[in-house]
Amino acid sequence: MIIALKPGVSREDIIKLTSDLENLGVKVDSSQGASQIVLGLVGDTTVINDEALRANHLVERVIRVQEPYKRANRAFHPMDTVLEFKSGDKTAKVGGGSFAVIAGPCSVESREQLVSVAEAVKKSGAAFLRGGAFKPRTSPYSFQGMGCEGIDLLVEAKKATGLPIVTELMEISQLELFEDVDMIQVGARNMQNFNLLKELGRSKKPILLKRGMASTMTELLMAAEYVMAGGNSRIVLCERGIRGFDNFTRNILDLAIVPALKKKTHLPVIVDPSHATGLSWMVPAMSKAAIASGADGIIVEVHNDPEHALCDGEQSLTPEKFENLMGVLRKYAEIEGKTI
Amino acid sequence: MIIALKPGVSREDIIKLTSDLENLGVKVDSSQGASQIVLGLVGDTTVINDEALRANHLVERVIRVQEPYKRANRAFHPMDTVLEFKSGDKTAKVGGGSFAVIAGPCSVESREQLVSVAEAVKKSGAAFLRGGAFKPRTSPYSFQGMGCEGIDLLVEAKKATGLPIVTELMEISQLELFEDVDMIQVGARNMQNFNLLKELGRSKKPILLKRGMASTMTELLMAAEYVMAGGNSRIVLCERGIRGFDNFTRNILDLAIVPALKKKTHLPVIVDPSHATGLSWMVPAMSKAAIASGADGIIVEVHNDPEHALCDGEQSLTPEKFENLMGVLRKYAEIEGKTI
Amino acid sequence: MIIALKPGVSREDIIKLTSDLENLGVKVDSSQGASQIVLGLVGDTTVINDEALRANHLVERVIRVQEPYKRANRAFHPMDTVLEFKSGDKTAKVGGGSFAVIAGPCSVESREQLVSVAEAVKKSGAAFLRGGAFKPRTSPYSFQGMGCEGIDLLVEAKKATGLPIVTELMEISQLELFEDVDMIQVGARNMQNFNLLKELGRSKKPILLKRGMASTMTELLMAAEYVMAGGNSRIVLCERGIRGFDNFTRNILDLAIVPALKKKTHLPVIVDPSHATGLSWMVPAMSKAAIASGADGIIVEVHNDPEHALCDGEQSLTPEKFENLMGVLRKYAEIEGKTI
Amino acid sequence: MIIALKPGVSREDIIKLTSDLENLGVKVDSSQGASQIVLGLVGDTTVINDEALRANHLVERVIRVQEPYKRANRAFHPMDTVLEFKSGDKTAKVGGGSFAVIAGPCSVESREQLVSVAEAVKKSGAAFLRGGAFKPRTSPYSFQGMGCEGIDLLVEAKKATGLPIVTELMEISQLELFEDVDMIQVGARNMQNFNLLKELGRSKKPILLKRGMASTMTELLMAAEYVMAGGNSRIVLCERGIRGFDNFTRNILDLAIVPALKKKTHLPVIVDPSHATGLSWMVPAMSKAAIASGADGIIVEVHNDPEHALCDGEQSLTPEKFENLMGVLRKYAEIEGKTI
Repeated sequence: MIIALKPGVSREDIIKLTSDLENLGVKVDSSQGASQIVLGLVGDTTVINDEALRANHLVERVIRVQEPYKRANRAFHPMDTVLEFKSGDKTAKVGGGSFAVIAGPCSVESREQLVSVAEAVKKSGAAFLRGGAFKPRTSPYSFQGMGCEGIDLLVEAKKATGLPIVTELMEISQLELFEDVDMIQVGARNMQNFNLLKELGRSKKPILLKRGMASTMTELLMAAEYVMAGGNSRIVLCERGIRGFDNFTRNILDLAIVPALKKKTHLPVIVDPSHATGLSWMVPAMSKAAIASGADGIIVEVHNDPEHALCDGEQSLTPEKFENLMGVLRKYAEIEGKTI
Repeated sequence: MIIALKPGVSREDIIKLTSDLENLGVKVDSSQGASQIVLGLVGDTTVINDEALRANHLVERVIRVQEPYKRANRAFHPMDTVLEFKSGDKTAKVGGGSFAVIAGPCSVESREQLVSVAEAVKKSGAAFLRGGAFKPRTSPYSFQGMGCEGIDLLVEAKKATGLPIVTELMEISQLELFEDVDMIQVGARNMQNFNLLKELGRSKKPILLKRGMASTMTELLMAAEYVMAGGNSRIVLCERGIRGFDNFTRNILDLAIVPALKKKTHLPVIVDPSHATGLSWMVPAMSKAAIASGADGIIVEVHNDPEHALCDGEQSLTPEKFENLMGVLRKYAEIEGKTI
Repeated sequence: MIIALKPGVSREDIIKLTSDLENLGVKVDSSQGASQIVLGLVGDTTVINDEALRANHLVERVIRVQEPYKRANRAFHPMDTVLEFKSGDKTAKVGGGSFAVIAGPCSVESREQLVSVAEAVKKSGAAFLRGGAFKPRTSPYSFQGMGCEGIDLLVEAKKATGLPIVTELMEISQLELFEDVDMIQVGARNMQNFNLLKELGRSKKPILLKRGMASTMTELLMAAEYVMAGGNSRIVLCERGIRGFDNFTRNILDLAIVPALKKKTHLPVIVDPSHATGLSWMVPAMSKAAIASGADGIIVEVHNDPEHALCDGEQSLTPEKFENLMGVLRKYAEIEGKTI
Repeated sequence: MIIALKPGVSREDIIKLTSDLENLGVKVDSSQGASQIVLGLVGDTTVINDEALRANHLVERVIRVQEPYKRANRAFHPMDTVLEFKSGDKTAKVGGGSFAVIAGPCSVESREQLVSVAEAVKKSGAAFLRGGAFKPRTSPYSFQGMGCEGIDLLVEAKKATGLPIVTELMEISQLELFEDVDMIQVGARNMQNFNLLKELGRSKKPILLKRGMASTMTELLMAAEYVMAGGNSRIVLCERGIRGFDNFTRNILDLAIVPALKKKTHLPVIVDPSHATGLSWMVPAMSKAAIASGADGIIVEVHNDPEHALCDGEQSLTPEKFENLMGVLRKYAEIEGKTI
């Protein structure tokens, strides 16, 4: 940690501050710069309350050199985290050289719809089934999802197809309904719902953690750290587009976060091209770009009848288009040395 | 609602689509543009699922002319909403010509700290006491607030000073602890925690709803609409800075949303200059700018010892600086015809 | 064009406004909505001054249904624009099924450096040589480029290798120096330097037009329209990253603009992964993602000694890494049916 | 300057790097951190090419502690810069306790329009007349300004009213036409047109430098530094709104940059509420907020007939509304101890 002091700080003040800091157990090196003193703190600087330090009248600037996340940090845990799931009589993996395709409708609408889509995506090679039962909608007047009944239908579809299921949890009290869910999704709007993250840290379920709409990479990793601090390290990170100033897409797909995350953390990273773009005709191009950028998978919306979907029809692929996409993705996976 | 069709759509398709839409109860006017047909929908277009419509293969673009919010909409409720609170033997108001000053520490740290700050801000003219008991922190390793004990101390401070108290709720299960809290704050990170909003709609408590870090004005109003749809209309909206590309302040204080909101909604609007800037020396300038822009109040952090605050010391005013600020704000209020 | 009137506008005012608009040659359809009148304008609405219309006291909102660009619009010019260049005894193309690789140093530093890099990138398969002679630098104290001498060295390198050269023009007066330059780059900071764009419209040179740091897709296309309105349609558009709120990369590479542009315009679209990320180790991943997203090429920085580059060393590939990248890109091009 | 090295760098490498840096004339202090070595550079670090340093394979991160601007830096020039102009038989100032109001039409349209507006704004107390002769327009098909004729009319209006005139220069070759212009405006789109800035550095004219649409505070100050490095220090900085993700205003008015700039630089700072919001009904609120935030003035659009303005009518005040605004601003100025 680097502390740049204000110009003109007195010798006594510096000695006092240095001593206060050293009493916290860190070593302090001092350099006389051109116009100001710079202190370098060595040791376990996590004990330092840097907000208070920034409020100190002697201090101009505080710079942390080390990353604030530990359990999620590849520097301390160099080996890739790999998640394994039972998918019928096979094992579906996220991470570890697998390219995991999670597909299904935006929201569960009926048994017929879900089973039809589930069978279609399985046939095309998806390893997981997605579907929303509890839906975070901007308007209170929009369809809010089927709730518990939606979860039941997902579990039925899992029994029918063998595909592990991924669905979104919106609040802690729903957790008991998620017993048969294989991976719990935390949506972008809940990425910093810290109480929810803590609770999921106590759970044993794999977590699909979506990046918040305006969250930095560090904030995403700190959200993962919340879950990991509770003892649950089975986390998949997901880039799903960030808010931008233009509107030709719903969000801006920030694909460079994929290699950045792969460098900074050992957790697997997937991409959601459906929510990122909001436009089904862009999904194939962005899915290919996701695998090209190094992602460990995608989560993609597929609907048997997008024009009558209760939610997000505009961004859903038909099963036929999904089948075509999978064909191309297999070629890409081959170049990248990944298995689908 | 306006629907621009794709060029080259057949007459039969248009007749079919028009008939489908009219079956939903709206009237459809069709105009032949230079290169495409444009449909104008008249009537109650809230019955139209515009997401499905956007997914329709005939449709190029869907434009909603009307605002999606109703209960929060000034067009339907022209009279200002005014909230009243008992503040000692006086009445403290938010809205209705009052400039409400809500002040106190970022987080409750101890009885001494809280009572000392509460008495100071009361003496300077604050009408409400703020203080965090449950704290949303980016890092799981940062101080997370005193929890229930913090609430107890706030209630004690309320008894001692008469000031109504404002504090943040982080999840539904905490609601029972908030019985003696006068206004429940929903933080920026929870602005789209829809389950929480619905629950607060069933409560009778006034709600201080902060704008999310990257939320549009419409999304903020739709969040208020969630609460109002549940039957609770006692809502104060709060601009607290949005995420930007520079870092000379913590966030970008978007003051133009104040007149914009005053035009679109009847709900009162306040400003949080402390979180917006993150820098205590900017708080006076931005507080004055808030009242100048038409705000109904501010919520501002005051700490007796910012250099040792457990949280956000860098953005907290000392009681002395707060006293000075109140002096200037009274002059501004006089010009604006508002009472502090 | 759609004009939503304010609620309560009188019949006389509507008749007057309609008549004023019809006098401009457009047809006006009027629909009575739930709470307001909506006018639909049909015909050549480019004659309408929509800024004045927005200032009209009767008008609440003006919505343009049609795109404001014409010459750049694929709707009016469905065929892809393809640019052809002499590259040694071959023809290098941008667009039309070619994946054009433009490579070279950020700035021209010396004859040795340039020739060495030019020969290396040619050997690896680049079709164009890039290099900056006039450099837009944030600081007046940074190296500003070699100027005319840099142009001379580029022309020498072109003679030596046969590679057509691409370099940035910073102001109109430099144009006479660019006679032997094959493609003139307009940098992100000059994307809305309208005088420069007009001048380039009068030139016969192909233009590489980079997207501004915060420009929308429509603004980029309108910048192209400025050049095209002057008679020059040989334009290549370039996504080079937009400004964002995080700093793990220099900019945010907005790859979804590639399919969006390919749909809206007939002009070729390339990607600059070097400036977008600012980090050489990310360039291969983002180059692959660019071809996967449908781009017609990339412009990438290669330097023989990045650690001693006078500019942007951190984002430059070594010739070895560029060679490796080209190997992978050829495989991707094969899948995409493109030639490198 | 702080250099964090990668973990595991060898002793030899550190000695070599330290020696290379010391040969450039700086002193290097080395600290052994928990997991990496950190070098602190003391002395004139402007000689260091930090881009090359970032490309160095030993280096993880480079952090500049000092600001990159010098001439614009208040640390080195603590006294406020004040610009003085002849305004009739009085002196109009920007900076130094004056609140300068610059008013006039977006674009010069005719002698009648300009003289009428000029006389009106003078009567209401404006100290400067603004008006565009050369207009940067997004579309090549929009009105581009009257050009030289517009400049002539501005000079006539100056003779008639005594008001010093402010108008925008779009390219270097226009400079000769600006001999009688009192303050040359550099528009947001030209803030990083470095050739133009250099040329203006050689001029003796006061410069009104507008912040670019997505420029950081440091970039704005570096743009000023370009002009100052050429010898011209008579610069007024102008906040005019930055690009954001919402569209209820044209741009986001970032008022916190006013106190931030007043701290970092000695140059005066004004605000453009017209372009920032794009909506005339918001201009009074944002003008008041500007003076409250500490600005040295505003530049505001006034048009005698906004509904027929050739440009930006929606954001122009009528002379009556401007007169009202000036009345309120005088009261604000009194509180702030400023003269209008």
